[in-house]
Amino acid sequence: MHYTANDIKDLDRVRRLKLINSVSGIKPANLIGTKNRKGQLNLAIFSSVIHLGSNPALLGCIVRPTGEVPRHTYANIMAEKEYTINHIGTPFVENAHYTSAKFDGDVSEFERCQFTPEYINNFKAPFVKESKLKMGLRLVETIPITINDTLMLVGEIQHILVDDIVFGTDDDLDLSLINSAGVSGLNTYYELKKIARYPYARVPEVPNFTSD
Amino acid sequence: MHYTANDIKDLDRVRRLKLINSVSGIKPANLIGTKNRKGQLNLAIFSSVIHLGSNPALLGCIVRPTGEVPRHTYANIMAEKEYTINHIGTPFVENAHYTSAKFDGDVSEFERCQFTPEYINNFKAPFVKESKLKMGLRLVETIPITINDTLMLVGEIQHILVDDIVFGTDDDLDLSLINSAGVSGLNTYYELKKIARYPYARVPEVPNFTSD
Repeated sequence: MHYTANDIKDLDRVRRLKLINSVSGIKPANLIGTKNRKGQLNLAIFSSVIHLGSNPALLGCIVRPTGEVPRHTYANIMAEKEYTINHIGTPFVENAHYTSAKFDGDVSEFERCQFTPEYINNFKAPFVKESKLKMGLRLVETIPITINDTLMLVGEIQHILVDDIVFGTDDDLDLSLINSAGVSGLNTYYELKKIARYPYARVPEVPNFTSD
Repeated sequence: MHYTANDIKDLDRVRRLKLINSVSGIKPANLIGTKNRKGQLNLAIFSSVIHLGSNPALLGCIVRPTGEVPRHTYANIMAEKEYTINHIGTPFVENAHYTSAKFDGDVSEFERCQFTPEYINNFKAPFVKESKLKMGLRLVETIPITINDTLMLVGEIQHILVDDIVFGTDDDLDLSLINSAGVSGLNTYYELKKIARYPYARVPEVPNFTSD
């Protein structure tokens, strides 16, 4: 199947969303937790969390300020500068998926979708107790992506809370040991199975791949 | 385990890289194909491809112009404005991993790591024949992330070449049917298993999650 730019433009909206939201490959399934000035909690599923750098430890996520769904998340992060990113475990993907419904402003997705808010000292935003890898971030940069009116929010990691079992027998994390889920498109969820781990690639150690 | 921002800063460099490159969750495993003005091909593994929007169809990827590894990819994209993004199938993760070795400038990773370049009309950059979902992109925006001296390259999708089997029995893509791989950290690879698909979340249709 070959889609050109024109074919993509001519697809009906839902088919285009399904296709284009899948073609980048597997996406991480995370819940972003925030609190507003009145103390109301918000929890929203995001598939756009991305690693930006390790020193300082920075993560980005994409928001559409003019869009409807993550409006509370965006507003709360801009106002409070603090938020949490929580891996979604495979047993919780259905609960997490439904945080994307457009609940009224006074409904907390924590309560409606049965997640438990959890706090640590000196950090205002709520973590998700059920998550086995969760982080507290402070907003450090807001980068406009002018071509489609979106923003990348850049946060510096202040806290990582992770279940020890993620390390398995070596010092690389194995996300399958904490059941972290992946997502493609808008609604398709995956579990992960670790299949391989290779050393840092040095030229003299590259295998001879030539056939027979 | 609880790491604070200071704990992260104090980790030795390799442990920090392993940890922080894993905490965003599962990342997509893609190969980016480019060609320079002399016609030399380059192929490099990237785990930072991200969906930015569907109309226009935009994907981002993060590059560090001052870094060593993806320097040819970055230079070629800036010069030629065209590149391909190709899903890495699980049978090819080892070959793909070793494209990250710092080969001399006259070595093509296509040849050294045993991938086959493939072309379509009116598009200069090489696709990866072995990939079951591959795209041709045109560079449309270059966004500096000043806080850590990286760039997000934004490309508009010009072509999608995808094996029909990805659609399975419905109109959502199932990336496990084309064996698309995920990656965490710098070197850990995963296969995907689809576990669930839920409808668009409308408030009246949200399940009652309250226990018992």
